[in-house]
Amino acid sequence: MNPEFLRRLKALLSSDAVLTQPVERMVYECDAYTVEKAQPDVVTLPSSTDDVAGIVRLCREYAVPFLARGAGTGLSGGALALGGTVIIAMARMNKVLSVDAANRRARVQAGIVNTHVSRAVEAFGLHFAPDPSSQSASTIGGNIAENAGGPHTLKYGVTSNHILAAEIVTPDGDVIEVGSPVEDAPGLDLLGVIVGSEGTFGIITEATLRLTPIAPAWRTLLATFDTVDDATNTVSGIIAEGILPAALEMMDAVIIQSVEAAFHLGFPLDAAAVLLVELDGHAAGLDADAARCLAVCEAHHARKVDMARTEEERAALWKARKKGVGTLGRISRSMVTQDCVIPRSKLPVVLASISEIVARHGLRVANIFHAGDGNLHPIVLFDERIPDEVERMVAAGHEIISLCLGVGGSITGEHGVGVEKQDFLALQFSEADLDTMRRLHDALDPDDFCNPGKVFPGAKGCSRGCTHEIKLRQKAAAV
Amino acid sequence: MNPEFLRRLKALLSSDAVLTQPVERMVYECDAYTVEKAQPDVVTLPSSTDDVAGIVRLCREYAVPFLARGAGTGLSGGALALGGTVIIAMARMNKVLSVDAANRRARVQAGIVNTHVSRAVEAFGLHFAPDPSSQSASTIGGNIAENAGGPHTLKYGVTSNHILAAEIVTPDGDVIEVGSPVEDAPGLDLLGVIVGSEGTFGIITEATLRLTPIAPAWRTLLATFDTVDDATNTVSGIIAEGILPAALEMMDAVIIQSVEAAFHLGFPLDAAAVLLVELDGHAAGLDADAARCLAVCEAHHARKVDMARTEEERAALWKARKKGVGTLGRISRSMVTQDCVIPRSKLPVVLASISEIVARHGLRVANIFHAGDGNLHPIVLFDERIPDEVERMVAAGHEIISLCLGVGGSITGEHGVGVEKQDFLALQFSEADLDTMRRLHDALDPDDFCNPGKVFPGAKGCSRGCTHEIKLRQKAAAV
Repeated sequence: MNPEFLRRLKALLSSDAVLTQPVERMVYECDAYTVEKAQPDVVTLPSSTDDVAGIVRLCREYAVPFLARGAGTGLSGGALALGGTVIIAMARMNKVLSVDAANRRARVQAGIVNTHVSRAVEAFGLHFAPDPSSQSASTIGGNIAENAGGPHTLKYGVTSNHILAAEIVTPDGDVIEVGSPVEDAPGLDLLGVIVGSEGTFGIITEATLRLTPIAPAWRTLLATFDTVDDATNTVSGIIAEGILPAALEMMDAVIIQSVEAAFHLGFPLDAAAVLLVELDGHAAGLDADAARCLAVCEAHHARKVDMARTEEERAALWKARKKGVGTLGRISRSMVTQDCVIPRSKLPVVLASISEIVARHGLRVANIFHAGDGNLHPIVLFDERIPDEVERMVAAGHEIISLCLGVGGSITGEHGVGVEKQDFLALQFSEADLDTMRRLHDALDPDDFCNPGKVFPGAKGCSRGCTHEIKLRQKAAAV
Repeated sequence: MNPEFLRRLKALLSSDAVLTQPVERMVYECDAYTVEKAQPDVVTLPSSTDDVAGIVRLCREYAVPFLARGAGTGLSGGALALGGTVIIAMARMNKVLSVDAANRRARVQAGIVNTHVSRAVEAFGLHFAPDPSSQSASTIGGNIAENAGGPHTLKYGVTSNHILAAEIVTPDGDVIEVGSPVEDAPGLDLLGVIVGSEGTFGIITEATLRLTPIAPAWRTLLATFDTVDDATNTVSGIIAEGILPAALEMMDAVIIQSVEAAFHLGFPLDAAAVLLVELDGHAAGLDADAARCLAVCEAHHARKVDMARTEEERAALWKARKKGVGTLGRISRSMVTQDCVIPRSKLPVVLASISEIVARHGLRVANIFHAGDGNLHPIVLFDERIPDEVERMVAAGHEIISLCLGVGGSITGEHGVGVEKQDFLALQFSEADLDTMRRLHDALDPDDFCNPGKVFPGAKGCSRGCTHEIKLRQKAAAV
């Protein structure tokens, strides 16, 4: 690393905001896609938008690639520092700048943790609706970059539905404001381009968030089934009834057993699947909707349907869902989580095919996912010490993705492309589609300085010839 | 027009699909922004995506600019054929291609009329939620290009929330598919770029639409107020109560009187304002919500609150709202509709200021708008035969836009920039913001062939030196 570049970086930022020691940089060598790692050359910790713009301009001057990093909870390697890179870690830009409760919006710095926003506005009866399972750690900037979803996406929509405006430091080091504090912004939709662009279009420094009223009442049901088909047909049945649950999540037998071993919640160990159904809104309509859900569950042979009676019981069910993947560490040395989306009506056939594919490769699979959205998370369990298990895991993953595309699905629902799914993008899009994306990218970052080597097929061998260590780690990612 | 170009165009399309006679082309000389007009050199009527791609490639070969046109209901001049242009009129591409009721989506051609989609899926209990007042004429392609809103945007969101994927003929004549039939699409969000880009990024030929269940029950209230402040404070009050109406619309005294003269609905002629409040959802919760709305209205001194008792009474109230602007033709020779958005909490002060501004310019104003969204539609009434009235109307419009920007608003909510608001875009965005938009545009249409002269400040004098007749017409646009 050019010593003059480092000297100027240290002059720009406070002395404790530039990390160069190997032991410091090691913390940043991967994100929650732990399958690959790449240590950055420098980690910077800006405290302001001016700091970020200064870092970017210095990087450009010395031809050093850079990328933003929030909490590193991303599951597709989007925060991997490929090729002699400066990480711009947003941890210190974690403030709520203003809350406008009357107009239901807040301005925050991009490094703030997702749940901290909701905590800051709870007294106004408001919350920030997107709730990825990582929300107790993941940052708003990362949520925007990945267009994060979550269990409540079914009713409330993904992150893009909750971002009104954002301040961006462009790959040239300019500071721009995209979107509009009131909807909808005129001109070209730069905000739409930024949300979900996985950090390839600049550094998000601030955002104006739409806030959502906390629902006055809820009903949370846990329905137990003896077959997976009954559970998935219930999902379609509830939606077909015209009910829009706040969340409609499914967990299969492997997850049930793993969660029960960890949390002792009284889950039925012999069940094939459970559905977690949450309804929210005004109390008046909820019991009627809950009764209709119950009827649909019974029509599809539910063994039983329990309803949470207290906030604690509800929290226990959500703990099972949100921390469920982590419990798989008890039963498998390693795991890789897929993230495909399929039309909801294809759930029964696709889940059956996934079981067949994984079994054929001699592996096990666990399913815990956003059933109402058709957003699957098949988790392939494996042990990298056993010869061929990695290859079989990879082969099974490819077959699962092909299967989902074959029924009109998508290669990723909420985890992003990152480095994990670059090569799959060409399965979903034509060369003309991808060329159009590339032209869009090159309009803002023609020299590939901003989070290089991500998203696009072949981008790993990026324009400056990045190389990075690829190594399968002992433990892979959580959902 | 190059005769060889015309000959090849006619060879490409059926003989009745190329219009060149002045009397034929005159129909296409303006859209609902009737303040300016520009006759196209040729109008084409493609029947397929292949036709559209063929037209675009021929246009590029002969260096002729082109633009798509739906029903021509746009209010900002986006379908104005600037400078020796070929119009690609989508009227014949008006089919529903498939309906997937289980997964709540439909694939349609872009020239289909908005309400025809809802009619085609009504038997499944579904509808297409975006409902611009133009919906009985406007097309899905135009709705996408302008990211159309409507009264029910408050609860259901704008067009971008209801488009899953689209087929686009790029400015180079390539056919690409953007988005994904299941959410959310990986890679760069090309669909987000297309929606709301006002036809500057290519020709939308097909779209996959998200369908929404028809609400099982509704309550539609009409609250009458003696002051505008009471009405606008009621708007904030209803939202602050945590109620999310399906629609929350306001009409002022000028509109009330004009609507009553036209439709004889029994509206109170001495009222200062009425609010149209629609609640929808399951019947169980609606009466409780309606009672809470009633209480808020009464707390803000509503003179009375009526509830529609039948579907016919409800339809009459919506007729007043959706056809209200048209009735102003009875009381004013000409009108121009503004389309600003402000934070909802600023409604009282901004409406009072608009009245003051328009009165100071010696003109009248009527207000009929999406109050719940803070999306204003002040309609300035004038008579272009009276010396200076046009200049005063223009000056008042500028002051209104400045006022809205000053309280943190936006220059347009749903009508687009088109040719009408190009110069205002620079009031809302910085030069760096606009430069970023321009780079994005130039990535896909560097030579400005696709709907040239729109959106960007200064674009009227576009790169090929377009000129177009600017003439104030006798009647200007409807909302």
